[in-house]
Amino acid sequence: PVPGIDLKNVFTLRQVQDGMDLIQTLAQDLPRDAVLVGAGAIGLEMAEALKRQGLEVTLIEAMDQVLPGLLDAEMAAILKRYLESQGVRCLTGERLTSLGSDDEGRVARVYTDKGEYPADLVVVAVGVRPNVDLARHAGLELGPTGAIKVDQGLRTSDPDIFAGGDCAENFHRLLNRPVFVSSGQLANIHGRIIGTNVTGGNALYQGMVGTFVARVFGYTVGATGLTEAAARREGLEVTTVLAPGLDHAHYYPGAQFVGLKMVAETPTGRLLGVQAVGPGDGAKRLDVAAAALTLGATVEQLTQLNLGYSPPYNVAIDPLANAAQVLENKLSGLAKSLSPQEVQTLTEQEEDFMLLDVRTPKEFQEVRLDHPNAFAMPLGKLRDKAGAFPKDRLYIPFCKFSMRGYEAQKILEGLGFKKVKFLEGGVVHWPYELEK
Amino acid sequence: PVPGIDLKNVFTLRQVQDGMDLIQTLAQDLPRDAVLVGAGAIGLEMAEALKRQGLEVTLIEAMDQVLPGLLDAEMAAILKRYLESQGVRCLTGERLTSLGSDDEGRVARVYTDKGEYPADLVVVAVGVRPNVDLARHAGLELGPTGAIKVDQGLRTSDPDIFAGGDCAENFHRLLNRPVFVSSGQLANIHGRIIGTNVTGGNALYQGMVGTFVARVFGYTVGATGLTEAAARREGLEVTTVLAPGLDHAHYYPGAQFVGLKMVAETPTGRLLGVQAVGPGDGAKRLDVAAAALTLGATVEQLTQLNLGYSPPYNVAIDPLANAAQVLENKLSGLAKSLSPQEVQTLTEQEEDFMLLDVRTPKEFQEVRLDHPNAFAMPLGKLRDKAGAFPKDRLYIPFCKFSMRGYEAQKILEGLGFKKVKFLEGGVVHWPYELEK
Repeated sequence: PVPGIDLKNVFTLRQVQDGMDLIQTLAQDLPRDAVLVGAGAIGLEMAEALKRQGLEVTLIEAMDQVLPGLLDAEMAAILKRYLESQGVRCLTGERLTSLGSDDEGRVARVYTDKGEYPADLVVVAVGVRPNVDLARHAGLELGPTGAIKVDQGLRTSDPDIFAGGDCAENFHRLLNRPVFVSSGQLANIHGRIIGTNVTGGNALYQGMVGTFVARVFGYTVGATGLTEAAARREGLEVTTVLAPGLDHAHYYPGAQFVGLKMVAETPTGRLLGVQAVGPGDGAKRLDVAAAALTLGATVEQLTQLNLGYSPPYNVAIDPLANAAQVLENKLSGLAKSLSPQEVQTLTEQEEDFMLLDVRTPKEFQEVRLDHPNAFAMPLGKLRDKAGAFPKDRLYIPFCKFSMRGYEAQKILEGLGFKKVKFLEGGVVHWPYELEK
Repeated sequence: PVPGIDLKNVFTLRQVQDGMDLIQTLAQDLPRDAVLVGAGAIGLEMAEALKRQGLEVTLIEAMDQVLPGLLDAEMAAILKRYLESQGVRCLTGERLTSLGSDDEGRVARVYTDKGEYPADLVVVAVGVRPNVDLARHAGLELGPTGAIKVDQGLRTSDPDIFAGGDCAENFHRLLNRPVFVSSGQLANIHGRIIGTNVTGGNALYQGMVGTFVARVFGYTVGATGLTEAAARREGLEVTTVLAPGLDHAHYYPGAQFVGLKMVAETPTGRLLGVQAVGPGDGAKRLDVAAAALTLGATVEQLTQLNLGYSPPYNVAIDPLANAAQVLENKLSGLAKSLSPQEVQTLTEQEEDFMLLDVRTPKEFQEVRLDHPNAFAMPLGKLRDKAGAFPKDRLYIPFCKFSMRGYEAQKILEGLGFKKVKFLEGGVVHWPYELEK
């Protein structure tokens, strides 16, 4: 209920006709400045679609990150930087307050709690509510999520009536309670179960794990299971890792990085969730993770998965297995690390530490962290040079993906350093300033 | 030990240098007729590489299919047809007997038990043996496969010596015994386990499931778990299905079909294996299946997997989940079907049956089975027309993928027909003659 929400050229997207209307407006009114309200999957897909049409695109999101609830902050930060590199202005932590019009009743400006922006096209995509009118009229029970309550056989409170799809609740295997999500895939799964049961069968819904995937410009973005934030809200103790990898062999054309975050329960090592952001094939790794979550896998089991390996399809250690290996090393205490956000906090608190960039001089020349505490220390020279370092300082080694960063940690520990933690995700996952 | 195997320009491929030598020969001797002996993954990859260099390529395989042992016959048949469409002559069930030379000691012809062929370049790729010389000299025990015997911690018969990679045996989770395979991925997994154990840890190898994937021209080809043939050799009772699907939404550019075969134990529904052949993204589905096999999934669990769904990445029902749904329908007796090979057997036995092509007239016009018993019967007209059919005949309905074929089966059963079995895989999986 925002003043001006009913102005001309303010759209919501629910049905095919909404898209048709929007296309017609693009052709007819030739808008130049699009403002998208809500940085969920629909908002991001619209950002790409409108940018491709040549519009200036501004994304306004009330929460302090893109894809709130779907990605953890550090994964969202990488995506936000990428969106900005594609020319999308991302205003997170900013709330739409009203919309203003031109003389003909068309939207012309949007106002937020922080500023005002030109806008001759606005798309509002701030989520969906289940359509339960019919169910309510029929006297069916609704669940705490507001969607229709169903049992494992997808029967409603009236055993002769079944419900599935976007109007019904979904049982979440990891949260162990019903949730409301809107998914064409789950609707199909529900349909099959209901079809079986109304014809005398006894199919049971095994529940979902909250998988989503989207293409945003050239990036694959998605998640399955619980984010770290969601797991902590549930009171779970977790260990996490940021671990990027290549989607296939570096010597086979087209290899791209997949940024992964993995979340596991501490100390059991039970897999809780995986997030992916990057230009590489993250969709495959998310699907493997979704199957693993459904089947109750541990991180240890993932470290040894026998996945398809051939240069066009994978590296010898799949990025998902690699993330699991790093996480296993963290769970066992072998690997010690900090996320970019944790380093940022140390920076803000003016803690004393050194960021050791252990990449080659050539890599350092191409791109490097723009951070006062970062300096070059190629891995090959570390053993020789480290003798001169004070031993009581905190050292944070890193490289492109931070595999060599971890090696540096082990080398320094071997030399008697006590406070060494590698930077998770290396340069690839660093969401702050880079220097080129 | 074949006469002439030592002639010039007869290659085996083991090391990088072998490839370098082959490239030099291509540049120097300008060969025109390549013969590849062995239709395993290396042979098929070489077929593509040499075809791209402009050579005539003939593949000779002693077994009666390509990728023997890796794919079941009906999946191999689709691949063979595709290889032939790419200009590769495939001679299966034909054995190399000798090689003949020109005046300068270079290979010029190959002789088989069935014919002779010009050949100025020959690549022999008929498998690998483990290199166990060092182990044998050290007095270590070898296993029944000829590779080094190891326990679950990858210790050899001398507890101070560990072995992994291509010289060591691999525990196969589904066969429940050691096997010999050669895999850079498994070697890496072994390396991590050994590294942990030699430094005082206690990592255990969970075993492998026999996953392979390869790109062959534009097709993705692979398998995980047991083939039907392998499962039957183990004395397992199995139910199988051929079920092709699209790799992503048909309305999003670039959608391609993934041909899948799924094998499950009867009657438990335990997943035993999946094979993929086709231009679509089969690698993702194989990796999901590999994880599911490792974690002991049933077909029922696969029918409800919550995989990433968005038009660039998937259809609403993933091809793997779809195959599981069809297989679940077969296991429950709901779906009745025949494979193309079973139809071929009925044809050879001159059984009385009709192949009902229930696709649209437009699809029928584009391509159709070249089979005397096949005729067009669009699904929409089936209810009206079927009244005139004799009820005691065998009817085999099919469509492009045979989803409508299954619908036709249910319609005919509803009308009182007793002998209806849809053709698995439809036109897409039919490896015999097609008419255009």
